[in-house]
Amino acid sequence: MYEFGAGKSAIRVLFEKSMALQQQGVTDIWDFSIGDPYVPAPDEVQEAIEDTMATMTSHEIHGYTANNGLPSVRRAIARNLNKRFGHESRRYDEDDLILTAGAAGALSATIATITNAGEDVIVLAPYFPEYRMYIQAWHCHCVAVDTQPVTFQPDVEAIERAICPTTRAVIIDTPNNPTGAVYTPEVLEELADMLRQKEKELDRTIYLISDEPYREIVYDGHENPWVPDFYEDTIVCYSYSKSLSLPGERAGYILVPPSVTNHDRLYDGLLGAQRAINTIMGSLVQRVIERCADIPAPIEEYRRKRHIIYHGLTDIGYDVVRPDGAFYLWIRALEQDEQAFSDRAFEHGLLLVPSDDFGSDSYVRLSYCCEDETLSSSLPAFQALWDDYGGYRW
Amino acid sequence: MYEFGAGKSAIRVLFEKSMALQQQGVTDIWDFSIGDPYVPAPDEVQEAIEDTMATMTSHEIHGYTANNGLPSVRRAIARNLNKRFGHESRRYDEDDLILTAGAAGALSATIATITNAGEDVIVLAPYFPEYRMYIQAWHCHCVAVDTQPVTFQPDVEAIERAICPTTRAVIIDTPNNPTGAVYTPEVLEELADMLRQKEKELDRTIYLISDEPYREIVYDGHENPWVPDFYEDTIVCYSYSKSLSLPGERAGYILVPPSVTNHDRLYDGLLGAQRAINTIMGSLVQRVIERCADIPAPIEEYRRKRHIIYHGLTDIGYDVVRPDGAFYLWIRALEQDEQAFSDRAFEHGLLLVPSDDFGSDSYVRLSYCCEDETLSSSLPAFQALWDDYGGYRW
Repeated sequence: MYEFGAGKSAIRVLFEKSMALQQQGVTDIWDFSIGDPYVPAPDEVQEAIEDTMATMTSHEIHGYTANNGLPSVRRAIARNLNKRFGHESRRYDEDDLILTAGAAGALSATIATITNAGEDVIVLAPYFPEYRMYIQAWHCHCVAVDTQPVTFQPDVEAIERAICPTTRAVIIDTPNNPTGAVYTPEVLEELADMLRQKEKELDRTIYLISDEPYREIVYDGHENPWVPDFYEDTIVCYSYSKSLSLPGERAGYILVPPSVTNHDRLYDGLLGAQRAINTIMGSLVQRVIERCADIPAPIEEYRRKRHIIYHGLTDIGYDVVRPDGAFYLWIRALEQDEQAFSDRAFEHGLLLVPSDDFGSDSYVRLSYCCEDETLSSSLPAFQALWDDYGGYRW
Repeated sequence: MYEFGAGKSAIRVLFEKSMALQQQGVTDIWDFSIGDPYVPAPDEVQEAIEDTMATMTSHEIHGYTANNGLPSVRRAIARNLNKRFGHESRRYDEDDLILTAGAAGALSATIATITNAGEDVIVLAPYFPEYRMYIQAWHCHCVAVDTQPVTFQPDVEAIERAICPTTRAVIIDTPNNPTGAVYTPEVLEELADMLRQKEKELDRTIYLISDEPYREIVYDGHENPWVPDFYEDTIVCYSYSKSLSLPGERAGYILVPPSVTNHDRLYDGLLGAQRAINTIMGSLVQRVIERCADIPAPIEEYRRKRHIIYHGLTDIGYDVVRPDGAFYLWIRALEQDEQAFSDRAFEHGLLLVPSDDFGSDSYVRLSYCCEDETLSSSLPAFQALWDDYGGYRW
């Protein structure tokens, strides 16, 4: 735990450097480091809080809930999922859902439950750096497998080669943080076939953990595939951080689809994790989720922001992966050493996270969930950075 | 995790039995099983929520906070602690505090941080049953040591005998759940001396974890000692569940006093645990705590409830430990087998938790944080139960 706490993330290092600069009076700083949405929560959230406070007793609002959350909240979520992803042969209900402290809490409880110490969990690089902590906390190995060049789709053959008799799970997130890639049905089909084959071959369950904080944030008519439709042993870890702009409230859930091997036993295990490690959603926030489960995500907001920064940077000449979803730009660094590039960008007031923390080389991540003005006003600094290098040096 | 989730607590078994009875139309049920306060949250909580919603932006209210919580909230708590427990040579500040998802989250993160797999954590029986899960989740041994007969004060000699080269911590809670005992300064002094001696002898840090969800709920002018005053390597795990009647909001903190060995390293480790296992307090609730850190606990409410049930039961003839704090009665069962007694009480509609779940024999626990009416209306049923047995049978 000391290593996790003292070994600062690249994001935290950037944050502290920018604080120091601000104290020196420097004000031209554009902080693109963290995925903390500046888009306000929808009005319905405030209304839900007011309604809850006005109509319920203190005990109803603030009393203990079951560790898996209030049944009425789980039913509201199940109804929403059935509307969007249900069909006759596949309905979700409250007993498939466990409310958690965000997707982070969901992942934490899931990994605690399904793994034994020493097992492997595969992640696809570039990957969200916190996955490493969630995995290593339970004394498991975080095994990174590169995605495909250019498309950043899963490289199923490479994943297959990484699977061994101690592999317990593969974590995916579509749309992806940091690349914005939305996985295609074809690649998920291929991944599912391979995993099924490996389950048979190794005679053990291999879970596909679908981490979905950005599920609804998809652009240009892209369809984000519903992962449980492809693979039976999928566990979905969801967060309302982005769809309702509530990251600090730590509101999320685990969905255990009925198709999962030993569904009830896994569900009981997750209840045990909730009891033992306490990644539980707060009670007032549960009431908010119950009332807001059907509110759509602010996709238009993020589409507008993407437009500003994506076109701004490509017009200058930057090689940027066009994101089909989420709210990050994956930018090829102007020199191969991503740390040196991030340092140089910092001299221009631009806070960009170097890719090594994501298990990848020669890129930086820009988070565009900030205010529009921050995006547009940063473009001259990006131009100056470009001029400084004279374009790509590799 | 499966064992924790499927191995139901005695409290949950009682709860399910009572639900079944209610479905059969039985209405004379007095549920004394769970410590879920019916005392409403103080008005200041509602005002704090309204004030926060009215004066802050969505991003300020619902945005990410640092994993250890907002600095302004930690400062408000430190100020409150300094007012109550500070003196010139010992001030707490924000860098001694980590906000957590309740005391449960605080214990979970603390045990995750300070232990290695295979180590021992000592608890004092009768003890809060969830301690076992918090300890075993990290592959450590939960070693129960009996408290002293009659007084339920720690038996320091017995604890000393239980300490071995793999002991990492002792958990205490004063006032105690389930007995209501408030530990005396003398016994804490003796415990601290012994632990200091053992630290030297074994050349390792042995933490005293002071779990304090009931800290302020103390009656009759009793003083609840401030544990860090007695022992340098104390870690305080606090919850606002009872003092502000907010159990569902999971609001608590870890205090690492400056006296703790390698303070900064431990603090970083706890930050790591917050990052890896996500026992983090929600952001709106943090704003509430900032505004309500100085609100006194509803002691008078609980004193009145204690009066009703304690005198009601002792008048009938029950042998009840008079609680000096918290809101539980520890009742000697009318027969030696506490499960059989609990079952018989259930036939009279009385839900009492048998003591074996607390690591102890021949008692039941009654939680009196319910409504006054529930307490007073239960007395005829307690009389009928008494008559059924004809008084104590052992």
